[in-house]
Amino acid sequence: MDIVASFNRREALQRKIIDQFPNLNFFFYKNMKELGSHIERAEVLVTYGEDVTDEIILKAKNLKWIMVISAGLEKMPFKIVKEKGILVTNARGIHKIPMAEMAIGYLLQYTKRFRDFDRQQRETVWNRRLPLTELFGRKLLIVGAGAIGSQIAKYAKVFGMKTIGINRSGKPVPSFDEIYVMEQLNEVLSKADFVLSVLPSTEFTRGIFGKEQFQLMKKEAVFINMGRGDAVNETELIEALKEDELAHAFLDVFQTEPLPKNHPFWKMDKITITPHVSAITPEYLPRAFEIFSENLARYLEGKRPLINEIDLSRGY
Amino acid sequence: MDIVASFNRREALQRKIIDQFPNLNFFFYKNMKELGSHIERAEVLVTYGEDVTDEIILKAKNLKWIMVISAGLEKMPFKIVKEKGILVTNARGIHKIPMAEMAIGYLLQYTKRFRDFDRQQRETVWNRRLPLTELFGRKLLIVGAGAIGSQIAKYAKVFGMKTIGINRSGKPVPSFDEIYVMEQLNEVLSKADFVLSVLPSTEFTRGIFGKEQFQLMKKEAVFINMGRGDAVNETELIEALKEDELAHAFLDVFQTEPLPKNHPFWKMDKITITPHVSAITPEYLPRAFEIFSENLARYLEGKRPLINEIDLSRGY
Repeated sequence: MDIVASFNRREALQRKIIDQFPNLNFFFYKNMKELGSHIERAEVLVTYGEDVTDEIILKAKNLKWIMVISAGLEKMPFKIVKEKGILVTNARGIHKIPMAEMAIGYLLQYTKRFRDFDRQQRETVWNRRLPLTELFGRKLLIVGAGAIGSQIAKYAKVFGMKTIGINRSGKPVPSFDEIYVMEQLNEVLSKADFVLSVLPSTEFTRGIFGKEQFQLMKKEAVFINMGRGDAVNETELIEALKEDELAHAFLDVFQTEPLPKNHPFWKMDKITITPHVSAITPEYLPRAFEIFSENLARYLEGKRPLINEIDLSRGY
Repeated sequence: MDIVASFNRREALQRKIIDQFPNLNFFFYKNMKELGSHIERAEVLVTYGEDVTDEIILKAKNLKWIMVISAGLEKMPFKIVKEKGILVTNARGIHKIPMAEMAIGYLLQYTKRFRDFDRQQRETVWNRRLPLTELFGRKLLIVGAGAIGSQIAKYAKVFGMKTIGINRSGKPVPSFDEIYVMEQLNEVLSKADFVLSVLPSTEFTRGIFGKEQFQLMKKEAVFINMGRGDAVNETELIEALKEDELAHAFLDVFQTEPLPKNHPFWKMDKITITPHVSAITPEYLPRAFEIFSENLARYLEGKRPLINEIDLSRGY
């Protein structure tokens, strides 16, 4: 049984999985081009998910399973994959730890005034009279109460925060005190001290945070976007911050990335920019390989479902 | 029964406690001088703890209980207070929430490179290639595993950190994976990714972090001092950072405060200065009054012990 991979990184991780499954034949290629015609004999393809095309699927006559070693499925040719009955799994969930840590980092960066203290240090100023606040007892609204949102809520709860979540079903989710559906967003915005978006980019989420939403927020509220940039109307966010409709925004994602040099965000005191880094972690591939390894064991035993099986008709 | 206070702040809190105990006589004075001879008739004194002298205790013929509305007891004349059989309680424990939040703030400030991202924003630089790491799985050594240390460990555990504590007894403490005694400090220093001191200032803690301790730390280790400044040999810390014996230091407390303008710490990239703010919170007095109120109820019912009774022979 041939397992082919269209990437060749982290030799130690490759070695580990080869040792775990000594009866299988693993082939790690630099990229899909180098993998070439080997796809015709392969039963399993391991890929970052951006190099799979209709043409490759047509050639892959023995392919039964695609393990996407990232969370990204936007470029996957779902139609033909489904027609051919190929199983797809991904590494969904490995972002949740770094992103939840980053989320709490933003909250503490703001409440503990680290940026102001840093400025004071540069200016050799000892000044204790900055308005430090607490996370304890404050309300955190997480728009997108999925795997990442739940992890953030779990951390927030131990700090004594109140957690409000928004998801599609409105069904309860662990670590959330309250759950609402997207249609209720405007109702709950005014309750929150922190509004955090981890929304993906879909036709339903585009521009969901605009003038009306910023006006509904508390004037002391902090907005955090670590989902996708197109959930925010950037012009209206700038306007809202200038009009003191909310207090601050932490933005990790933007309409255009890299953020253009001449974008007004760069120079705004009320905006903190991080360059789409919230999911970055040295643990990314190790965690993805753990999922792959567990799935491979299940696959060989004929056990189903595998971890993170993708519903090919929905695409996630 | 007269209850006198040598401070007159936060009228709403005063009003609340007066309403809770309508049969008692409360008197809030601006300071001890204004309180004056009223101390002779008072049964309970409420104070920040820095204005009580031998002379005042001698005059206080009816005094049975001193409620210190802070944690600081350094200036309390314990000998005479003990001789006269006066009960002392304090507001120990109200620092633990803001300090534990600040501690996690320091850890995330470092691992998520907020200071570097802030610099990049000021310079209009979009650069994702900074070495972001995680709290997950890292080892946090807390020197001083008391109420504050335990709160920090509780938060750290939910992030998946390993927690090592040092206390006087070596007895297990909740939220700590391992506990050692102070004599074992040098043994455990090399295990930790983060070394955090919440030590008070005593004859045993002075200069406890010096050249030898910094050399024992990992080169990637981060040192955090949010206890008292005199636990650290500052000259040797500067030397150790210059020699790359450890990676960074977050300092909230110093040998001399305010930190003198010409102190080398100010200009060091590997040092982050906050001006003794880790315990600051708008919730300070409300929490202290909650303890006072609960203790007053117990006192009136003759219940013992009160919350945070001080052992007058030990002074804490």
